[in-house]
Amino acid sequence: MDSPIKIEHLGIAVRNESEAKKTFSALLGCEPYKEEVVESEGVKTIFYRVGESKIELLVATRPDSPVAKFIEKRGEGIHHVAFGVGDANAALQRLGRLDFSAVNAEAKNGADDKLIAFLHPKSVHGVLVELCSDKP
Amino acid sequence: MDSPIKIEHLGIAVRNESEAKKTFSALLGCEPYKEEVVESEGVKTIFYRVGESKIELLVATRPDSPVAKFIEKRGEGIHHVAFGVGDANAALQRLGRLDFSAVNAEAKNGADDKLIAFLHPKSVHGVLVELCSDKP
Repeated sequence: MDSPIKIEHLGIAVRNESEAKKTFSALLGCEPYKEEVVESEGVKTIFYRVGESKIELLVATRPDSPVAKFIEKRGEGIHHVAFGVGDANAALQRLGRLDFSAVNAEAKNGADDKLIAFLHPKSVHGVLVELCSDKP
Repeated sequence: MDSPIKIEHLGIAVRNESEAKKTFSALLGCEPYKEEVVESEGVKTIFYRVGESKIELLVATRPDSPVAKFIEKRGEGIHHVAFGVGDANAALQRLGRLDFSAVNAEAKNGADDKLIAFLHPKSVHGVLVELCSDKP
């Protein structure tokens, strides 16, 4: 089936790394457990745990990166929701057959040792959806 | 402490109820388990379970409701994230002392038998945050 089994994380685009870490550490009552730069996406990711899910802060590392463009257009805020699935490629194929429009033809390497693929917001009522599974 | 223990739900503002239910039932591989109208907010809520969290579709029931105004301004998409806490009022007080700006002075009745309170997006990097606990 490869339906989502949980909200794996919620990606939040922020302008200022140190201010955002201060805010989210206070809100969540804990410190980030991991930080990771994904050069290919021009983004630094900062992870917090909340139950079985994570909050992933997204800070642009260059002005032409997707996160920088998102903030320029929409301001700071929630950027995407990632659903955890057993196999991101199998989920992508299942949803493709159901007429969802995929950004990626197949899953690629993402932050946090995951295989990831995105569905286009136009096919999910304005929501950028990431499908994400552990690397085999 | 009253820090968030999980993502309780993700609220998604949608225009058309039947189209959105078709989309999210296909995406999540299950049907909604509950629907509820909250008259005071001018909204119909439709709930799906995903792991320990929920997806809450928000459909405006009148043109002047907060959800209708959100869609008019920003389009469909993710509207808020709700964190589950032990006691919404205690969490609100803790965060007030940390200079978060609250929309509500104290928690009020929300959908799904919860006590809820909102933090203003301006104090959370553009994210509308709901704090939510079971009614005592």
